[in-house]
Amino acid sequence: MPAALLSHPFMSQAALEACRDEALVQSMLAFELALAEAHEQLGHIPDGVSRRMGEHLEAHEFDIERMAAGIATGGNAAIPFVKQARAVLPEELKRWWHLGATSQDVVDSALMHLLTPRLARIDDLLLRCRKAALPLMHAHAATPMVGRTLMQQALPLAFGVKVAQWATALESARRRLAVLAEAGLPVQFGGAVGVHSGWDEQGLVLMDSVAERLELATPVLPWHTDRQPIQALATALDAIAGAADGLALDISLLTQTEIGEVSEPSAPGMGESSSMPHKRNPVRCARIRTAARRIHGHTSVIINAMAQPLERGLGEWHAEWAPLSESVLLLEGALELAAELLEGLEVFPDRMRANLAITGGAIMAEPVTRLLAPLLGMDVASSLAAEAAERARQEAEIYSRVLERLLTERYPDIAAGIALAQLEDASDPALYLGSSKHQIKRAAVWLESK
Amino acid sequence: MPAALLSHPFMSQAALEACRDEALVQSMLAFELALAEAHEQLGHIPDGVSRRMGEHLEAHEFDIERMAAGIATGGNAAIPFVKQARAVLPEELKRWWHLGATSQDVVDSALMHLLTPRLARIDDLLLRCRKAALPLMHAHAATPMVGRTLMQQALPLAFGVKVAQWATALESARRRLAVLAEAGLPVQFGGAVGVHSGWDEQGLVLMDSVAERLELATPVLPWHTDRQPIQALATALDAIAGAADGLALDISLLTQTEIGEVSEPSAPGMGESSSMPHKRNPVRCARIRTAARRIHGHTSVIINAMAQPLERGLGEWHAEWAPLSESVLLLEGALELAAELLEGLEVFPDRMRANLAITGGAIMAEPVTRLLAPLLGMDVASSLAAEAAERARQEAEIYSRVLERLLTERYPDIAAGIALAQLEDASDPALYLGSSKHQIKRAAVWLESK
Amino acid sequence: MPAALLSHPFMSQAALEACRDEALVQSMLAFELALAEAHEQLGHIPDGVSRRMGEHLEAHEFDIERMAAGIATGGNAAIPFVKQARAVLPEELKRWWHLGATSQDVVDSALMHLLTPRLARIDDLLLRCRKAALPLMHAHAATPMVGRTLMQQALPLAFGVKVAQWATALESARRRLAVLAEAGLPVQFGGAVGVHSGWDEQGLVLMDSVAERLELATPVLPWHTDRQPIQALATALDAIAGAADGLALDISLLTQTEIGEVSEPSAPGMGESSSMPHKRNPVRCARIRTAARRIHGHTSVIINAMAQPLERGLGEWHAEWAPLSESVLLLEGALELAAELLEGLEVFPDRMRANLAITGGAIMAEPVTRLLAPLLGMDVASSLAAEAAERARQEAEIYSRVLERLLTERYPDIAAGIALAQLEDASDPALYLGSSKHQIKRAAVWLESK
Amino acid sequence: MPAALLSHPFMSQAALEACRDEALVQSMLAFELALAEAHEQLGHIPDGVSRRMGEHLEAHEFDIERMAAGIATGGNAAIPFVKQARAVLPEELKRWWHLGATSQDVVDSALMHLLTPRLARIDDLLLRCRKAALPLMHAHAATPMVGRTLMQQALPLAFGVKVAQWATALESARRRLAVLAEAGLPVQFGGAVGVHSGWDEQGLVLMDSVAERLELATPVLPWHTDRQPIQALATALDAIAGAADGLALDISLLTQTEIGEVSEPSAPGMGESSSMPHKRNPVRCARIRTAARRIHGHTSVIINAMAQPLERGLGEWHAEWAPLSESVLLLEGALELAAELLEGLEVFPDRMRANLAITGGAIMAEPVTRLLAPLLGMDVASSLAAEAAERARQEAEIYSRVLERLLTERYPDIAAGIALAQLEDASDPALYLGSSKHQIKRAAVWLESK
Repeated sequence: MPAALLSHPFMSQAALEACRDEALVQSMLAFELALAEAHEQLGHIPDGVSRRMGEHLEAHEFDIERMAAGIATGGNAAIPFVKQARAVLPEELKRWWHLGATSQDVVDSALMHLLTPRLARIDDLLLRCRKAALPLMHAHAATPMVGRTLMQQALPLAFGVKVAQWATALESARRRLAVLAEAGLPVQFGGAVGVHSGWDEQGLVLMDSVAERLELATPVLPWHTDRQPIQALATALDAIAGAADGLALDISLLTQTEIGEVSEPSAPGMGESSSMPHKRNPVRCARIRTAARRIHGHTSVIINAMAQPLERGLGEWHAEWAPLSESVLLLEGALELAAELLEGLEVFPDRMRANLAITGGAIMAEPVTRLLAPLLGMDVASSLAAEAAERARQEAEIYSRVLERLLTERYPDIAAGIALAQLEDASDPALYLGSSKHQIKRAAVWLESK
Repeated sequence: MPAALLSHPFMSQAALEACRDEALVQSMLAFELALAEAHEQLGHIPDGVSRRMGEHLEAHEFDIERMAAGIATGGNAAIPFVKQARAVLPEELKRWWHLGATSQDVVDSALMHLLTPRLARIDDLLLRCRKAALPLMHAHAATPMVGRTLMQQALPLAFGVKVAQWATALESARRRLAVLAEAGLPVQFGGAVGVHSGWDEQGLVLMDSVAERLELATPVLPWHTDRQPIQALATALDAIAGAADGLALDISLLTQTEIGEVSEPSAPGMGESSSMPHKRNPVRCARIRTAARRIHGHTSVIINAMAQPLERGLGEWHAEWAPLSESVLLLEGALELAAELLEGLEVFPDRMRANLAITGGAIMAEPVTRLLAPLLGMDVASSLAAEAAERARQEAEIYSRVLERLLTERYPDIAAGIALAQLEDASDPALYLGSSKHQIKRAAVWLESK
Repeated sequence: MPAALLSHPFMSQAALEACRDEALVQSMLAFELALAEAHEQLGHIPDGVSRRMGEHLEAHEFDIERMAAGIATGGNAAIPFVKQARAVLPEELKRWWHLGATSQDVVDSALMHLLTPRLARIDDLLLRCRKAALPLMHAHAATPMVGRTLMQQALPLAFGVKVAQWATALESARRRLAVLAEAGLPVQFGGAVGVHSGWDEQGLVLMDSVAERLELATPVLPWHTDRQPIQALATALDAIAGAADGLALDISLLTQTEIGEVSEPSAPGMGESSSMPHKRNPVRCARIRTAARRIHGHTSVIINAMAQPLERGLGEWHAEWAPLSESVLLLEGALELAAELLEGLEVFPDRMRANLAITGGAIMAEPVTRLLAPLLGMDVASSLAAEAAERARQEAEIYSRVLERLLTERYPDIAAGIALAQLEDASDPALYLGSSKHQIKRAAVWLESK
Repeated sequence: MPAALLSHPFMSQAALEACRDEALVQSMLAFELALAEAHEQLGHIPDGVSRRMGEHLEAHEFDIERMAAGIATGGNAAIPFVKQARAVLPEELKRWWHLGATSQDVVDSALMHLLTPRLARIDDLLLRCRKAALPLMHAHAATPMVGRTLMQQALPLAFGVKVAQWATALESARRRLAVLAEAGLPVQFGGAVGVHSGWDEQGLVLMDSVAERLELATPVLPWHTDRQPIQALATALDAIAGAADGLALDISLLTQTEIGEVSEPSAPGMGESSSMPHKRNPVRCARIRTAARRIHGHTSVIINAMAQPLERGLGEWHAEWAPLSESVLLLEGALELAAELLEGLEVFPDRMRANLAITGGAIMAEPVTRLLAPLLGMDVASSLAAEAAERARQEAEIYSRVLERLLTERYPDIAAGIALAQLEDASDPALYLGSSKHQIKRAAVWLESK
């Protein structure tokens, strides 16, 4: 196993287990048995053939190492698999084995068969994320934090909105994949050149029958060189990776020592440093971000391999297998961590408040200007609001007090007409959260709508 | 204009015209006016403000060059646009201008507004492709050609199936984009940090109202750093590019001098060589393939920029604009050519027949073996079929005749029981097209179903 | 011009100017004239032909728009260029025009000719960065700041080392490109299929002569489908983009409101917000990061197009032009900004000190533990250091004082043997900068070594 | 092991063996022991410590599975490795273990250590390719074949030039990597934040000493977030992949049934089809092309991860490991096959001649026109040459004969002055190979020059 330590820890252990080589072989076998059943039902081969094939092969231990060598010479997993299986079958069954199928039928269908339960798992993980996000959104519907654009402090928002953003991104990506999963991943069955050579009007009937038996979708036509299903799947997975990555990026920024507004849930060993005992590294974020980057690279391979020549790719097809299957393994790994983050995220409203204060009041200059503009004119109001913010920061005083002082000194008449409470309100981030709570409500309704 | 000659000729001229800088400015203006109307309707600003703004600005000629300079310092197109526009407005209107909006609202919404008609154009072009493909499929439902896997001759299929493959790939990509287009590209409106600061419960109402006025979709929440809509759009465009690229790859392979089964439609100047007058280059294929490669690169930028920090990207957002808009321009260019190819493709059934013959009969060895196996046993039948093919090729004789001769020489008893006509049928590619015609029928029904 | 506002402001204006379509045409002309001169010198064509060609063409205004249309049908810029030029030439010169050349010769050579001065400009910009970095490194050779790993505070370093890191990354990328630039970008000249058909032993002589006249490098062989030179160039540019991006990423992180250790140089209009007057956005960083992302996408196109079929690419070649030339334009733009950043970066040592203090002393727990371990044993020393840090943070007290107090309370005997000054030294970040000043010295020597 | 069958058969088995997890662990151990030796030599730790550490650890069997779990929580391989090793050491050695190092030091250095012998292997494989190409070039220095641009027949060249193109591409990519390999992959050693905290002027001395002991290169500075070395390595590997891919693309095109000019060497089981016994698939080409595509995807991950924040990447660093190491494994696999192809390529000069003839003579119209132009004028000569070619093709006659006949019929006076031999020569592809043999000679000199 080639430096698996450099790769596998970023994948889901459950998914790794489910996608072992033996599982791939079982999926290839499932395809061949479904095909035999379909032939049997249509009367192409004697009754009982498929059952007997299953009896010989389901318990058989395929030689994975020899299979790998066969792939190197044959070019795909079906070739040595078909051969090993045929060798096991009694003479009288051999001729019905792999009947009408070509390698691509076996590999494509097996891959779709192998990945179908992964899509369900990904859906589960995303529902787990959604379930964790909802109470977090509600709990922080009025928790003020500073919004940051281009990483600079801008204006306040409720932390719950941030969570709602993460949740809606993940959920919209989930729904996109769910559409694909509901339609089903398609079976591939077309024979040597995709037209069921020798089977004429039975060809499409066989294809549909195999699809049904494997609980895969029935495509309009065989899709040996029409890779739309692969591109649609890969880019849908990539979208989920992007959503998880957004969550991880935000959390890693908010976790910075100087910001400290949230923290990854603590867990034994998680995030320790090999040289600095005081540190807790946002390791889950790092792992999610790693997975997302690698998935993007895999997606790039797949989209660049879409155009496949004539009736079979020459490298394009073969290049899909590892990227597609690894994307799934990496994505499940990332989502397990995303769920953990949302379920256990430590939130520090005090630090959010403290950070809201560090510009003195500059971030509240806009609402203060709004309050004063009708009295002082726009320009004066705006420059006074800015000056007060700068003073408040330098003198470490409260913004509203500095405002009151400046007003009193310079515009005593106007100052008389404004209560300190008005200034306090205008400069209170908690009162300037805009549509935050409405957004949370709206997002919650939408999240729970499917 | 920087070496536009190296880039623009691969784009659609119509799309280039529609996406000029002036059009982008008009889309930004449309957003701001829709926002003013929405404010007006909600009573936030006096009646007539939006109309008067429109009067001042709709005829105004914005200074594009100065705008470019403003983008360099401000970072996005909205900043200089908002400034130039404000300078034009009479004093009393200035305060209602850009009210509650931030740069990202303007740019994202303008881009969605600019691209919406492009999606309709792409749909039109794809429908044109589909319309051209259908008669071609039917016309060649029984035209035998050789199928090639890993670029090696394999078994026959009908050329119409090849066309059906192209058509279903393009059509399934079209339907994927149509789902997005039908749902609509979303408006973006969230103000400085995405929570409609200062507008509270009016924020989402404003957002929905602006969406309606621009005929854009209403998102659940503002999506300033949730780039799912961009990824979904870019990858759907990329899927279409992949389908067009598949068509172009196949045609460029079938057009090879030695194969010559199809030819790009001829047109004045199209495909000429600067040094070899006898050559006709498959320039449309080259242009489609170029466009697809560049679109894949653009998609790669977009998927790698999905995770955007907190309330605004710092480079990630800005990196989306050129790739997304250029992908559209390139894709329309590619689809114009794909439509031309399907509408005017020259098909040479004679060359297809000739190519079917060049292996002597080796590609028909499978059905011949099927015929002889019950009489000679599998192994003998198979080696006889192969030997006859090799002789037919060397002696440039007809496969069935060589078969008959060999049978007569070696197995006279069996030969007596097989009519030459049987051998002719078994070795006739035109009788071994499998499910070709059924596939064409099925594809046609599906293509016409929406 | 298609939404150039979305793309060009991220490019260098100087480079855009230098790479206008007219300049590309001039480079194509330079190639053809150099070829005519070479033929002339070898006696293939009459004396004076090249001079007369130049007289007719150097002042000629080529019709760029018609050229674009010709590219759409011909597939590359050389075809309409050669035609327009030939039309201008007097009859007797026409036959010597474009003699022995093919389109790819013209386009590849013109591109290399066009880009050669850009490499010099990129080198200049990188030298400007280096020049600006050196005094910044020295000035901050002892300015303590906190090092951050996985964005968490870790241990102190000198800010000058950070600068040295940026500078050495940029400089090593510069030297890599310089190797290519010094070797020269190669001329391409091979005629229709790359073997100088009809010119026999004169072919390579012509190639070398054209190279010399254009001051381009002489390749071993024509490289029409050996795209190593393009890949080497594109990936070298990409490496520079990565180095500039690293600088921009660091600065954007250090510029965060809560960190505030550096600031982009202020300049009129630079970094203003369309809705928040108090904000100064790190727009240069955003632009650099945008350029880098787009360059990476372009590089991805180029590496995926390396394998080009037989004697000319079919889309692969054509796909190189825009990515390669735009990468240069974007990179120059990014480097102009990187130079500005390094020349004018505002550095705030006070904020660095303040940030060093915010963990109380946790980041200095390591050296404190080192001091106390010989006296208290490793485990006790380490937990005491951590406890003191936590208290210092909570009570906003000075770390060394808290340490002294705890020692005195719990280990009075030991406390007696340690002077407060020792504790102060052990917990003083400015005294714990490791090899910082040595690294700066070493980096400076290396930077100035070439 | 997750569906390794979908990935590993495209890698080198030798490289897979050499890069097993155990080898990675040994490289991490080598780093730590070299560090201990360096400390020892500088007197930081007692004599004999490193030797004793080695005695305890070199024979120790690390628990790979537990290590994988530790990576999942710690984020990198060094954390569990350091811990497992420390647990094995006797108490008195523990304190000297991993002294002054951080995780990134261990992982980066181990990776460079692990990959260094792979670079030598890649060089060997490329030298093997070169060695195989040279005789093939010379053997076919005068073997005419048709050159194809945009996959259309153009003009003749010698097959040896095609080989020379492959060889120079591979060799120039080899020399690029050799420059890196000769300079050496760099050690990484900087401690927690890259400034050798606590080691002051000894820090760089330690770094250089560790480098020397591991036979790695000494960088100017630690390069924890300056990923130039990784980008330079990955893109150099990618360039080799591109060169191998070019070879595979050409061979797969020339191997097409209808072209048949070359064939992959035959070998037992290689290229068999699961359904069509008569087929021999170009499986080596497919595998090389697969590897190249996946390497390009990996390169895309690496270039997009170049900018790494402050003193340690947060996902960017971690994302490098699998792509970089897998690129090496895939590249070695591809080069083993490239060497096999060049060593055993079956070349069919007869098919090359036959293909030269299939346009009748159209591809020779250029030299024929050259011959006749002085006599008939350019236009007449050119149209006569074209007409004769078309007739020759239709009537399956020899081009020169048709030319002679047409000349005699229409221009008897001129025909009288031209010998048939002249027409035969002008239309003989074997006499129109341009600089082919000169190119082969030049390429050979260059190939053998280093």
